[in-house]
Amino acid sequence: MSKAEAGKVYLVGAGPGDPELLTLKAARLLAEAGVVLHDDLVPQSILDLAGKQALIISVGKRCGRKKITQAAIHDLMIVSARRGLAVIRLKSGDPMIFGRAAEEMDALREAGVPFEVVPGVTAASSAAAFLGASLTDRRVSSRLIVLSGHHAARTVPEPELWPGTLPTDATLAIYMPGQNLAQVAASLLRSGLPAVMPCVAVTDASRPEATYTASQLSGLSHLPTSFAPTLLLVGRAFEALLTRGMEHESFERVSAAELLHLTDG
Amino acid sequence: MSKAEAGKVYLVGAGPGDPELLTLKAARLLAEAGVVLHDDLVPQSILDLAGKQALIISVGKRCGRKKITQAAIHDLMIVSARRGLAVIRLKSGDPMIFGRAAEEMDALREAGVPFEVVPGVTAASSAAAFLGASLTDRRVSSRLIVLSGHHAARTVPEPELWPGTLPTDATLAIYMPGQNLAQVAASLLRSGLPAVMPCVAVTDASRPEATYTASQLSGLSHLPTSFAPTLLLVGRAFEALLTRGMEHESFERVSAAELLHLTDG
Repeated sequence: MSKAEAGKVYLVGAGPGDPELLTLKAARLLAEAGVVLHDDLVPQSILDLAGKQALIISVGKRCGRKKITQAAIHDLMIVSARRGLAVIRLKSGDPMIFGRAAEEMDALREAGVPFEVVPGVTAASSAAAFLGASLTDRRVSSRLIVLSGHHAARTVPEPELWPGTLPTDATLAIYMPGQNLAQVAASLLRSGLPAVMPCVAVTDASRPEATYTASQLSGLSHLPTSFAPTLLLVGRAFEALLTRGMEHESFERVSAAELLHLTDG
Repeated sequence: MSKAEAGKVYLVGAGPGDPELLTLKAARLLAEAGVVLHDDLVPQSILDLAGKQALIISVGKRCGRKKITQAAIHDLMIVSARRGLAVIRLKSGDPMIFGRAAEEMDALREAGVPFEVVPGVTAASSAAAFLGASLTDRRVSSRLIVLSGHHAARTVPEPELWPGTLPTDATLAIYMPGQNLAQVAASLLRSGLPAVMPCVAVTDASRPEATYTASQLSGLSHLPTSFAPTLLLVGRAFEALLTRGMEHESFERVSAAELLHLTDG
C-alpha cells in the first residue's frame, strides 16, 4: 500500500454508484488525489470522498452538454501529471469494460506519463447482486456475454447486437441498452433467442432508488418508453424473477425495499 | 450504511486477491461478521480483516483435500444465521460470476434465511488492469465473453468452449483455463478464431507475484505445462502485448515490476 504518486495518472473504477462499493484502493487514492477527472455517471456521494486539496473536474460527455473532446481529456490528464499532481481519472463501473480507457492509456504511453489501472465493480455484477440472481447459474447458463447497446460507429441500419446465432445457455448483459428496447429485442430474436427468454431491465442497481422490470423477450417492446434502464440482463438464469413478476402483472417495477422483502422469504 | 445484521447471510465478493481491492462494504462486513465461510482462493491477508469475534471456516473444495459437500455449506450458512450470527459467505472475485451462488441463494430462500449479495471485482477486470489493456477496446473489440474452462458436467469428449462460430471482434476471458492450454487453443481454433489471435495467460493478476505470458493462439500449445494461469484472455485488444513480448522471445513471462517499467514508457 503506497501513497498516490505525484506525476502519475490512476485510471480508477468508481463501481456501480453506491460509495460503499468503491474498492479500498479507490477510496484511498481519491482521498490523496490532486486532481479528479470524472465521468457524468459518477455520483456526488463518491466525489465527496476526494480530499479538500483535490481539484474536481467533470469531463462527462452526456448529450446536450457542451462537449469536451476525448483529446482534451487526454491533455488534461497529461498536463496535470506533468505539473506533479496525482491524477485520478474516475470512471463509473470498471475502467476496462466499455468507455475509452484503451485510447486514454495509449495517449498516456505516447506522452510517457506513468499510469496505473485500479479495477472496479462492473454494472452487471451489481445488478445481479441486487436481483439475487447469478450471472452464471451452472444449471442453465455457463457463459456471460457483455455487450453495449451503443456502438462507436453508428451505421444505418443499426448493426445486430450479435453477429450470427446466440447460444441459449448464455447470459447477456447489455450495457446502455437505450430507450428503444423493441429494437434490442428484435435484434436478439433475429440472433435466435426464443421469444420466451427471460429479460430483466434494471436501473441504478446499487442505489436505494434501484428498480427492475422482468418480462419475456417477446414482451420487451411493450415496456413504457419513459423507462430507461441502465442495464438489460437476458437469460435463463433470470427465470425465477419472471415467475415472481408474473404473479402480479406482466410488467412490474420492483423497488429495492420490496425486493428485500421478497428475498427475505 | 447499516451494520451487519444478526441472522442474515451476506454473499460477499472478496475480489481478485489484493486486500486493497475489497469493496468498502466487504471490508466493513468482514470486520463485523460472526462467522466467515470462505473459499480456498481467498488469501489470508483478506481473512485477517475479519474481527476477532469471527469464527473463520474454510469451505474450499480444492482437489486433494477432504471434500466438504455443497449441502454442508448450505447447512453451515443456515444454522449459523439461525443462531443469530451475521454470516459472511466470502467468495473470490464476484459472487455472481461462476461459483455456486445460485444454488446457495436457492437454499437460503428455501430455508427462509434473509440474505444480501455484495458484488466484487472479478478476475477479468483485475487482469486487464494489470496488463494495462482494456477488455473492450472499441476500435477492435466491442464485446466481452466470459467463459469457464471447467464445466459442471464433464463429458467425454470435452464439449467445445463455444458452440458454433466465435465473432473475431470479441474479447474472451476464460476463467480456470486449466493446464491443458493446447486443448483450449484447439477448441477456439475450431470455433473459427484465427491462429494469429493474441492470447495472454495471466496468473495472480492483482498480487505482487503476478505474471503474464503472451502468444498467438497457434502458439498456446507450446507453453510449459508447469505454467498454470488463473485466467486466459484472448482477443485483438491484446495485440500490443504480443508485439511487446515478441521483441524478446516468443513466450515471455513478465513480472509486475517489469510491466510497470514498460508501462511507464
